[in-house]
Amino acid sequence: MSVTAPQGFEAAGVVAGLKSTGKPDVAVVVNRGPLKVGAAVFTSNRAKANPILWSEQAVKDGVVEAIVLNSGGANCFTGSFGFQTTHQTAEKAGELLDVSSGDILICSTGLIGTGDEVFRAKVLDGTEKAIAALTADGGEDASLAIMTTDSRPKRTVVQGDGWSIGAMAKGAGMLAPGLATMLVVITTDAVLTSAQADAHLRAATRVSFDRLDSDGCMSTNDQVTLMVSGASGITPDPAGFGAALREVCTNLATQLQGDAEGASHDITIEVTGAASEEDAVAVGRSVARNNLFKAAIFGNDPNWGRVLAAIGTTDAAFDPYDVDVSMNGVRVCTRGGPDRPREEVDLAPRATHVGIDLRVGDAHATIWTNDLTHDYVHENSAYSS
Amino acid sequence: MSVTAPQGFEAAGVVAGLKSTGKPDVAVVVNRGPLKVGAAVFTSNRAKANPILWSEQAVKDGVVEAIVLNSGGANCFTGSFGFQTTHQTAEKAGELLDVSSGDILICSTGLIGTGDEVFRAKVLDGTEKAIAALTADGGEDASLAIMTTDSRPKRTVVQGDGWSIGAMAKGAGMLAPGLATMLVVITTDAVLTSAQADAHLRAATRVSFDRLDSDGCMSTNDQVTLMVSGASGITPDPAGFGAALREVCTNLATQLQGDAEGASHDITIEVTGAASEEDAVAVGRSVARNNLFKAAIFGNDPNWGRVLAAIGTTDAAFDPYDVDVSMNGVRVCTRGGPDRPREEVDLAPRATHVGIDLRVGDAHATIWTNDLTHDYVHENSAYSS
Repeated sequence: MSVTAPQGFEAAGVVAGLKSTGKPDVAVVVNRGPLKVGAAVFTSNRAKANPILWSEQAVKDGVVEAIVLNSGGANCFTGSFGFQTTHQTAEKAGELLDVSSGDILICSTGLIGTGDEVFRAKVLDGTEKAIAALTADGGEDASLAIMTTDSRPKRTVVQGDGWSIGAMAKGAGMLAPGLATMLVVITTDAVLTSAQADAHLRAATRVSFDRLDSDGCMSTNDQVTLMVSGASGITPDPAGFGAALREVCTNLATQLQGDAEGASHDITIEVTGAASEEDAVAVGRSVARNNLFKAAIFGNDPNWGRVLAAIGTTDAAFDPYDVDVSMNGVRVCTRGGPDRPREEVDLAPRATHVGIDLRVGDAHATIWTNDLTHDYVHENSAYSS
Repeated sequence: MSVTAPQGFEAAGVVAGLKSTGKPDVAVVVNRGPLKVGAAVFTSNRAKANPILWSEQAVKDGVVEAIVLNSGGANCFTGSFGFQTTHQTAEKAGELLDVSSGDILICSTGLIGTGDEVFRAKVLDGTEKAIAALTADGGEDASLAIMTTDSRPKRTVVQGDGWSIGAMAKGAGMLAPGLATMLVVITTDAVLTSAQADAHLRAATRVSFDRLDSDGCMSTNDQVTLMVSGASGITPDPAGFGAALREVCTNLATQLQGDAEGASHDITIEVTGAASEEDAVAVGRSVARNNLFKAAIFGNDPNWGRVLAAIGTTDAAFDPYDVDVSMNGVRVCTRGGPDRPREEVDLAPRATHVGIDLRVGDAHATIWTNDLTHDYVHENSAYSS
């Protein structure tokens, strides 16, 4: 059910001809209210696609009536023509839904540089077709229409106390040809103000999507949107809603990691004993982005020297000669020196755990990443975009 | 001739049994004076190997009598035993050369974690053997003894006006198994004070080795040492000496790039039109470290969208929609939009040029990197360390 699990939402996914495969490629999710609250977070890349430039403005008033998403073209670096395409898409959706175009968000994903006249015509047609096909159980269709190189759709639903949260996502771990954008739409029938929606969304994404760092490459089109219908009539306990939203976001982030193209290991890097959460994140990210470490994991090599060399490049508070490193539960390094024999570490399973204890404080953070494989290189070099 | 080209230096390279191949693995370079000036720059990684910890202290007084280098073991994360090994090596060399051990620098390269009793015995024996073998034309032997995964030795000599600079380097583009350390020894018979030597060395490395970023991974053992004998008796024109030293360092950096393991392209990223040199370096480095860009170059794909997406992650001053990008002389992107057809770009040659014009100022910088290939993944995953 994904985004149509909560009350007050309709969705659809249709074939607009943007994908050469003939698979669905335009999705629409509409909020039927009574509330029309929305919040969104966007890529922090300064090179932003046209839909991002549009949606950043459209969400500012905290009102979102609907979101139109297309795969088969990123509409990024397509100039003012591309921006007009996004604008026209919002106008078309607003007209058909009888709402202001300024309350329509747009997301696009696919190859950078795609956004010509043909693209525009297909997106506009697809938007019309999808709006005509809206149903209260269209969440599944919508989740299929936003897929690009994903091997499977990503959906999740969490039940609250009389309210629920539904969500869909696309993205192949930021690993796909042409920059695999992460698009996420989350819906809820809980009653929230736009300020609450925004605060909840930022809190949840900060510890979920922001900590997924598959290959250190940031897309131009990433967008995570929360739409609030309030149709349950229930104002949730803030802590309970926050935990549920975090669960939704973490679940989807894990699904994205598990579908990372070319990856053979899903690596969880858990940093403990840090002086601050920022330090823990910086340390985890430095390891997640270290190609030598990532290649070692691909080779089932518990190379803790590469972990220490990676964290040595950060400004975090720690003494390199007082750090512990474990891999899949085996402490291979203690206080900067060898501990258990490397032969004890079994890196054959896809799920890989790397523990780093900085031994200076109580703060901690977890970063999720993938290994660096032949398939990663192949898929990002062989398929020219 | 490498390090023994300038007057006043002797060198040797011998087999100590550290390498399983039986190839030379211990080198010594001695300064016979009359000056015994030295300067060195070290890895900025906070996880520093024992020889780095030692040499940082030993060079502080600006006096360097000799340098002992070994391949076949990094002596990093080997605890206090490893530090004692470094200390004993300096003591042994000082005793045999009849100088203070505090004026002996030590460099090690090889696998992290290597540094047990056997390692220590072989290094000490090798040091004795090398000192017994010192000759005024031993530069070539020394350059062979510091190789690890290098496919060829790296040497260069530049003639000044009555003085000369000689140098040797090892390193496979920071790409090798177990972190390919970059070790460089530069000698000159020009007359310089230790302050001048230090200033010249920092100025030259800043625009040469510091701008080589093969895979973003920083070794625990990197060291670049300048030894000054003053044997020519000639005090060089500072600008002339600076230019010659820059030439030596750039030449060696290019040799390191060209020998990067697994690489199929040597990529020169030239950033122009920047507001500051720092901005130009940050922009160049963000592209050099972007795996999607590096994989695209491997696939001969002039994917300028990945260049823009990479530079969009920096804080440099520019407007993403006013940037030009060229590849091998063909401007594929102008002002953030498509320009010449991608088919015009020929990425078949190993030498690859990427031009980025930020269009905001006059500052510029060049960063050298390599592509991300199957062989890179293979060599950094298949050979467990």
